[in-house]
Amino acid sequence: MTETKPLRVGMVGYAFMGAAHSHAWRTAPRFFDLPLVPELTAVAGRNADGLRAAASKYGWNSVETDWRRLIERDDIDLIDICTPGNTHAEIAIAALEAGKHVLCEKPLANTVEEAEKMTAVAQAAAERGVLSMCGFSYRRTPALALAKRMVDDGRLGEIRHVRAQYLQDWLSDADAPLTWRLDKSKSGSGSLGDIGAHSIDAAQWITGLKVTGVSALLETFVKERPVGGDFVGLGGHGGADGPRGPVTVDDAALFTARFESTHDDGAAAGPIGIFEATRFALGRKNAMRLELNGTKGSISFDFEDMNSLQFYDAALEPDAGFRKIMVTEPSHPYTANWWPTGHGLGYEHGFTHQVVDLVTAIGAGEQPSPSFADALQVQKVLAAVEASADNASRWQNV
Amino acid sequence: MTETKPLRVGMVGYAFMGAAHSHAWRTAPRFFDLPLVPELTAVAGRNADGLRAAASKYGWNSVETDWRRLIERDDIDLIDICTPGNTHAEIAIAALEAGKHVLCEKPLANTVEEAEKMTAVAQAAAERGVLSMCGFSYRRTPALALAKRMVDDGRLGEIRHVRAQYLQDWLSDADAPLTWRLDKSKSGSGSLGDIGAHSIDAAQWITGLKVTGVSALLETFVKERPVGGDFVGLGGHGGADGPRGPVTVDDAALFTARFESTHDDGAAAGPIGIFEATRFALGRKNAMRLELNGTKGSISFDFEDMNSLQFYDAALEPDAGFRKIMVTEPSHPYTANWWPTGHGLGYEHGFTHQVVDLVTAIGAGEQPSPSFADALQVQKVLAAVEASADNASRWQNV
Amino acid sequence: MTETKPLRVGMVGYAFMGAAHSHAWRTAPRFFDLPLVPELTAVAGRNADGLRAAASKYGWNSVETDWRRLIERDDIDLIDICTPGNTHAEIAIAALEAGKHVLCEKPLANTVEEAEKMTAVAQAAAERGVLSMCGFSYRRTPALALAKRMVDDGRLGEIRHVRAQYLQDWLSDADAPLTWRLDKSKSGSGSLGDIGAHSIDAAQWITGLKVTGVSALLETFVKERPVGGDFVGLGGHGGADGPRGPVTVDDAALFTARFESTHDDGAAAGPIGIFEATRFALGRKNAMRLELNGTKGSISFDFEDMNSLQFYDAALEPDAGFRKIMVTEPSHPYTANWWPTGHGLGYEHGFTHQVVDLVTAIGAGEQPSPSFADALQVQKVLAAVEASADNASRWQNV
Amino acid sequence: MTETKPLRVGMVGYAFMGAAHSHAWRTAPRFFDLPLVPELTAVAGRNADGLRAAASKYGWNSVETDWRRLIERDDIDLIDICTPGNTHAEIAIAALEAGKHVLCEKPLANTVEEAEKMTAVAQAAAERGVLSMCGFSYRRTPALALAKRMVDDGRLGEIRHVRAQYLQDWLSDADAPLTWRLDKSKSGSGSLGDIGAHSIDAAQWITGLKVTGVSALLETFVKERPVGGDFVGLGGHGGADGPRGPVTVDDAALFTARFESTHDDGAAAGPIGIFEATRFALGRKNAMRLELNGTKGSISFDFEDMNSLQFYDAALEPDAGFRKIMVTEPSHPYTANWWPTGHGLGYEHGFTHQVVDLVTAIGAGEQPSPSFADALQVQKVLAAVEASADNASRWQNV
Repeated sequence: MTETKPLRVGMVGYAFMGAAHSHAWRTAPRFFDLPLVPELTAVAGRNADGLRAAASKYGWNSVETDWRRLIERDDIDLIDICTPGNTHAEIAIAALEAGKHVLCEKPLANTVEEAEKMTAVAQAAAERGVLSMCGFSYRRTPALALAKRMVDDGRLGEIRHVRAQYLQDWLSDADAPLTWRLDKSKSGSGSLGDIGAHSIDAAQWITGLKVTGVSALLETFVKERPVGGDFVGLGGHGGADGPRGPVTVDDAALFTARFESTHDDGAAAGPIGIFEATRFALGRKNAMRLELNGTKGSISFDFEDMNSLQFYDAALEPDAGFRKIMVTEPSHPYTANWWPTGHGLGYEHGFTHQVVDLVTAIGAGEQPSPSFADALQVQKVLAAVEASADNASRWQNV
Repeated sequence: MTETKPLRVGMVGYAFMGAAHSHAWRTAPRFFDLPLVPELTAVAGRNADGLRAAASKYGWNSVETDWRRLIERDDIDLIDICTPGNTHAEIAIAALEAGKHVLCEKPLANTVEEAEKMTAVAQAAAERGVLSMCGFSYRRTPALALAKRMVDDGRLGEIRHVRAQYLQDWLSDADAPLTWRLDKSKSGSGSLGDIGAHSIDAAQWITGLKVTGVSALLETFVKERPVGGDFVGLGGHGGADGPRGPVTVDDAALFTARFESTHDDGAAAGPIGIFEATRFALGRKNAMRLELNGTKGSISFDFEDMNSLQFYDAALEPDAGFRKIMVTEPSHPYTANWWPTGHGLGYEHGFTHQVVDLVTAIGAGEQPSPSFADALQVQKVLAAVEASADNASRWQNV
Repeated sequence: MTETKPLRVGMVGYAFMGAAHSHAWRTAPRFFDLPLVPELTAVAGRNADGLRAAASKYGWNSVETDWRRLIERDDIDLIDICTPGNTHAEIAIAALEAGKHVLCEKPLANTVEEAEKMTAVAQAAAERGVLSMCGFSYRRTPALALAKRMVDDGRLGEIRHVRAQYLQDWLSDADAPLTWRLDKSKSGSGSLGDIGAHSIDAAQWITGLKVTGVSALLETFVKERPVGGDFVGLGGHGGADGPRGPVTVDDAALFTARFESTHDDGAAAGPIGIFEATRFALGRKNAMRLELNGTKGSISFDFEDMNSLQFYDAALEPDAGFRKIMVTEPSHPYTANWWPTGHGLGYEHGFTHQVVDLVTAIGAGEQPSPSFADALQVQKVLAAVEASADNASRWQNV
Repeated sequence: MTETKPLRVGMVGYAFMGAAHSHAWRTAPRFFDLPLVPELTAVAGRNADGLRAAASKYGWNSVETDWRRLIERDDIDLIDICTPGNTHAEIAIAALEAGKHVLCEKPLANTVEEAEKMTAVAQAAAERGVLSMCGFSYRRTPALALAKRMVDDGRLGEIRHVRAQYLQDWLSDADAPLTWRLDKSKSGSGSLGDIGAHSIDAAQWITGLKVTGVSALLETFVKERPVGGDFVGLGGHGGADGPRGPVTVDDAALFTARFESTHDDGAAAGPIGIFEATRFALGRKNAMRLELNGTKGSISFDFEDMNSLQFYDAALEPDAGFRKIMVTEPSHPYTANWWPTGHGLGYEHGFTHQVVDLVTAIGAGEQPSPSFADALQVQKVLAAVEASADNASRWQNV
């Protein structure tokens, strides 16, 4: 390993996502053979004290209190963007134009316009060998990667139904505090972009089909929440009696969708989809669920039981049934590098696998997936959902 | 029991529903104390041979090849309508006007107009002591009846989310035959009215709130199917090479919904809902699912595991979790009259309980539930779904 | 059906089992084509008032306050024994010797000696065309019957592990009353014979292999319970402050077992088994569970989800997994005569199927299964379990 | 963190367990505040090439080809023993006597004699401030740690039943190779010590009660297996046609048990237990399951769904039911230091938590848990199981 070239990383932001990314950079080379060895060169943030503590905790070698400095440094090869969505475009474009590879958290941006600019810059950069990727880390859950493989292998036949739910409950308490995730100017949208975006990306990626149109309903159940105070993590309980500020994003997003057809001649329509994203489903903690029904079989996934994939193979009828595949076999995606069969992985492994795929692509000089263009497509769906919701749920083409 | 007055029943139709209803009429008095004892007096149908065989098999004492004769007979107190939806209005209205109580299978009718006429006649009849009920038998599943009780008792708080799926797969085979259920002139609609109607009724009944508007998407995946041939049951495989006829109903129905608010002053909106009904979800056999998320708790049900109800009580946090209540305790709805705890019931028990509730109401001279008016409300939702789907999913008030 | 010969039934006992058997006799001919039509001719019991009420409720045409009268009657073809185990031998032997067919509830008797006598009488009677069966009704659960078929078809290969649990909790309350089931002189044993016997029968029947030896541990957690008072059903709460009497049976039975080998030459040992029966497993209501692991696959069943069978097919590795077969397809045992796929059955259907199989065998003049000899083998296992438990768990051959 | 004193670790062995331990040493300080910072100072093994590769891969700073050298080094504070059981005693005793803290993989040794010596040495060392721990890492699964807390808090009442299974299937293939785990001289026993030991430790730890006696049955299904060849991981498929050698350990271990009573006066017996460990349960990949039934409630766990714990609270009857607690709340053991609620952990987190607890204890100068004495008690149960199995399953006191 000593002779392998390093990949020197500079990370912007060090909250929840920063912790997950740091772990991934540290851990990926310990379990996978990588063409480049990641180095945790520098982390950037505005609060010098918090930044230094985070750097020490997560293992970063140096700090910068301005992300622009990070981009100026010669000893950094890749910028990893872990900040709220409103900052993505500026940082990513600056980094790419400075010749740094970029890993950008999802959603790619807060608007289609930003995402389009980022994609144009990314495509130009790619021609110069500067590569970029958007962090839809759920793609790297072994069970979802297996689902993708099974669909690609034709084991579901032609897909008819896409059924996606992303259910959480950490905002169910009406006194949970007004964090940046509830401020549209920072987060772009609420459950739609935060968690619904994962569902959209997973559905399009696994089926290999783009969403072509939607009809949507958005709802904000709790219109005002407590401001001020310090809090950590996603949930918490703000001061119920103090001042309140407006929630400017959706609490829940519901939409139906159509996907493009696999038939180039338009002989048949593509699948229809139904999506729900909410942070008010009491008891559902991180139920990122996806079910696909095809002409030959079905798959079903729930992140709350993330190490398994349910598969129904109609060829086995009448003794068929959804079978719970423990996605921990050596032949399954990513799993050979971990533990024996049946010894499951956790949430952070998706980030480690993301690093593996990104570094492997950079090593090979190939476009990582999902590209900014893929993420732009998700952004367009998010925008169509908002447009339909603003227009009495009328059908909106993407 | 010998001194209890009889309730003499005449049933129209003797297919799948006829078998279930016959069993219920026979069985209800064996497990429940009823104010009137049902007698299986006569069954009507057009095919004399099939009719006689069915009468003998199911235990009916006489037959009529014209349902009008059934209504003319003096020795019949109640007409039980088990025929396709296009015949409901004529039979039910004639029966009620002849002074017979009526039990009518769902959906009440094939159009709102018919349902409105039936409801008007039913309300007039009720004033003369002639009672009527629509057969939304799923209400009588103990687990759903317990769900209703828990919502009524305030254990979920204010409902925010309604999540309803009714997933089957018996039409997934593109060569399954073109039965009357796929002919709009007979069935009114496809998965929407056949199974989606159950979801709508259950959601409105359990929440106690009416759907006020919808946005919908309907899809017919298989446009033509084999005609002719004999087949039994719902599924089957027609002659793949023979002539085909058009499917004139929806194969799948997806819609979002809003419910009325519990706040009379309009201070807060009511719950939002998301509904899906399909007969193309490979591997899902009879997955009639309903989940409600409130401010204090959630419930979740799946008919494929019909003897249990999942309940999440937020008051138990942080050690909360969905708990699987086996709905077989003596204190649960209907179950004290059956077996010891843990010994589950089956599909047909819903029909037996329906007879119990109907006969009990008739004995007490009270309006049974669901009334034709309740069923008319479901019919209006079905119509709004179709109207929205015909109008680019635009929001449609009910 | 009018021309079909009747099978005139006389039932002894009318409690929990009597209700289940009555339903089965009434219902079987309504859903299945039988060679003989059961008639509910007479029911016997000692309490004249209770008996008359039960006869009326359950549909029996006459009553006898002495079971001997039942056997003397010419108009009765079959005696159905639903009384506690200490009465089985006398009634069954008298009935068989009087030329009546017999259906006897399980366990067959309270001792091996009684069971041996009954079996000898039954075998002699069979030569005269008088048939008998023991009521191990769980065999008629469609999922377990499918399990049997799959093992017979070789889909599990050679069985290595048998894992059986029968977990209930209705005695967990130390103040539950001292019923006849806790009195060894009436019931023979506790959880061992009441529910463990079902596990033993199912394991032997499905594998086709007899238990050859056991090592056991029995335990009585609650040594004294309230006496007197009326109670219904299995559980209940006696008077905590009143007099108490001794529990003379086991509360829980644990044992390991060996089964005979399929290799006649003794080349390999048979499967090993582990069994547990208890009525103190809080939260487990009727968890009659059976898992078999073979060289090619595994099956797993839990009566609390009785309409499904889990099957693992090693040939599908590495994408294998336990698949949940909804045992409601037309090709599955018994299910074609009921409802469409996915519409589950309940506890009492096992009794209805038992009547179907018994009447079919009688119609054909063939030995019904399980025979008294089969039930005697179960009795021998029960006796070996008690002997081992009495002898410091030392291995005891059956 | 720069000022925190280091804990310099020397690890012996670098296979499956070595990889897991290395990850834990690296990762623990990144997520938890520790009183000492682990340093991966040196790793020892016999194969110089494999050793160097492993050191580089896993992040160890130096290597030693003789574990004795590791113990001689001044710059090492703790010896981490990840080798087969037959080497534990010699290494652990040497290390402790040299003043090094010790973490020793389970089972502690291959015989009670060895374990007793190790325990004596450990107790003497502890008086000199040299501490030791045995690696029963499953204790650090958050769900099992929560189970322990709930039992300690009295939420189950008095425990009556312990039901433990550890089911795997990686030896089900009769051609899987003859690894050291199947050689009694190296591994001590088969499934009994490898996986059954985890069940015994977990059961004793969570209930707080020792096993006092057992009755056991051991079985070796496949008596000979292919020798030679290289293989990685647990399973694999050896050369079916090559030479074979004898399997000298058990393939499956079944036993019943009694636990000590919580009543000092012997007023009531303690719980009874039933245990099964096998590597032949086709389809069960790592099903380490534990269920406890008490007088007030029950808990149930399955490592295949390791992020949840099922809990039944009898106080909630009649609407009780096993509730699936997602053990990912900030108040649950270990989880506050990881991800938001609902974002699960994986197999290796148990090892990271083990390091956290060990380093915390060393920092505080307190005895870590489980001590060698705790592990000796497990060893005694293992020995009693073998003794009973060798003596016709006769009861054997521990």
